Amino acid sequence: MTEPEESSARRRPHRRLLLRVEYDGTRYHGLQRQDHTTLTIQQAFEDAAGRLGVTDCRFAASGRTDSGVHATGQVIALDLPAGMSLHRVTGAMNALLPADIRVRETAPCPPDFSPRFDARQRTYLYRLCALEPVPPLERHRVAFIKAALDPDRTREAARAFVGRWELDAWRSSICQATRTLLTIDECEALPPRRDERTGEDQPWWTIRVRARSFLHHQVRFMAGAVVACGSGKLPIEELRAALAEGRRPVCVTKLPARGLCLLRVDWEPGVDPFR
Amino acid sequence: MTEPEESSARRRPHRRLLLRVEYDGTRYHGLQRQDHTTLTIQQAFEDAAGRLGVTDCRFAASGRTDSGVHATGQVIALDLPAGMSLHRVTGAMNALLPADIRVRETAPCPPDFSPRFDARQRTYLYRLCALEPVPPLERHRVAFIKAALDPDRTREAARAFVGRWELDAWRSSICQATRTLLTIDECEALPPRRDERTGEDQPWWTIRVRARSFLHHQVRFMAGAVVACGSGKLPIEELRAALAEGRRPVCVTKLPARGLCLLRVDWEPGVDPFR
Repeated sequence: MTEPEESSARRRPHRRLLLRVEYDGTRYHGLQRQDHTTLTIQQAFEDAAGRLGVTDCRFAASGRTDSGVHATGQVIALDLPAGMSLHRVTGAMNALLPADIRVRETAPCPPDFSPRFDARQRTYLYRLCALEPVPPLERHRVAFIKAALDPDRTREAARAFVGRWELDAWRSSICQATRTLLTIDECEALPPRRDERTGEDQPWWTIRVRARSFLHHQVRFMAGAVVACGSGKLPIEELRAALAEGRRPVCVTKLPARGLCLLRVDWEPGVDPFR
Repeated sequence: MTEPEESSARRRPHRRLLLRVEYDGTRYHGLQRQDHTTLTIQQAFEDAAGRLGVTDCRFAASGRTDSGVHATGQVIALDLPAGMSLHRVTGAMNALLPADIRVRETAPCPPDFSPRFDARQRTYLYRLCALEPVPPLERHRVAFIKAALDPDRTREAARAFVGRWELDAWRSSICQATRTLLTIDECEALPPRRDERTGEDQPWWTIRVRARSFLHHQVRFMAGAVVACGSGKLPIEELRAALAEGRRPVCVTKLPARGLCLLRVDWEPGVDPFR
């Protein structure tokens, strides 16, 4: 007995590519595939790759994103058909993917390169709006928080996170990471503003945080701490003491997923596969 | 025979208010009510007012927006229940309106004040992206155009619109305005950029245009002319000549609604009802 179609699909030549991708995570149950009936980012990419003839394709990503979390600079590795130019692969994937996922650029994946383990810095943005109502055009990207934020305390709280901390208490209970002593390289809270060029109001705060790696839900807990300090509920000295002692203050809760976006991934100098 | 409920609803005291509102127009068949089964912005406001007990409420707006057009600074006048504080009216309306429409602030409507006829300046933004793909998080707000834009020509084309022109040829065939000799006070094409604070890429051009009044589809035709000049299809001198002669160059087409947003409305000095 022969299984001509399935075998030929399996044997179809493919090569491993890196894709820099952007997505609106609102509709998705996160990045990682769950089952075929659950909408995930991985499932969408594997479906598109399947329609290009690649079965059993291996998938890997630089940063896991939860249900409702967005990305403008996610990097994934995927097996795609050999023999297509990078530009044509990009166009074909964008024709096959749903409108809320897009491939920005494509590069060959170097041998033994992993978008997860070779990433040296990840930058996330967390947008939160303390002004009611949240602008409706931004409602899927900005979390509303019912608190008046003091600008100085909000900024100072974000900066308090820069350093090396035991962050076991700053993650979800299902996080499986084995290393929890981590360095946060940058953490800034950028205040609401008006874009002076266009005149558009941007009434949300943006927390920009950069580190080599993050734990599950860590940024959302950090955003909660920034709000707790900025609203006066948590003294900043208490936040500093908690970080130094490996604790999370009890009043710090996790903020919603929709405010979070994976902005970019950086690599070791000289090994950026897209340059 | 008596109709106690209907009569009491009709007699329920109300007052006329001005609402500064924002909306994501993606789902809506424009601003103006059509029939009860068609989703429009007006219908959404009248439904919310009805649930607050105001029937037969009169509706007026500063700027008509088409199907798919957005607003961050639309101003509407609406009859709402008397006896509620402005803050409570804002909160009640935001609780009753769908999530893609929000009231930013509320003010008493001065006697004989019309948000349409008393508006002295309207500012629209048109976002267009010449870089494929359009960022998926902005897909409902940015129009894609398949053209490489020369920055200098694009900027110069936008500025060519500043002045007083016969614009009869720059509107839709169903536009009912009787005055078509209009002054455009400002028209700027702002190039793509990266937000240096947050690191976010904004790969779209924004055309910012301000005038006392606009014709139906005028801004979308103007955006088409800016693209025609920026891509080299239309010499800017030909655009200038066409404007001076009251013509629209034949190669100029209307760009999609989704790129358009009513940014703000300004009033005569000293009569801003929200200040």
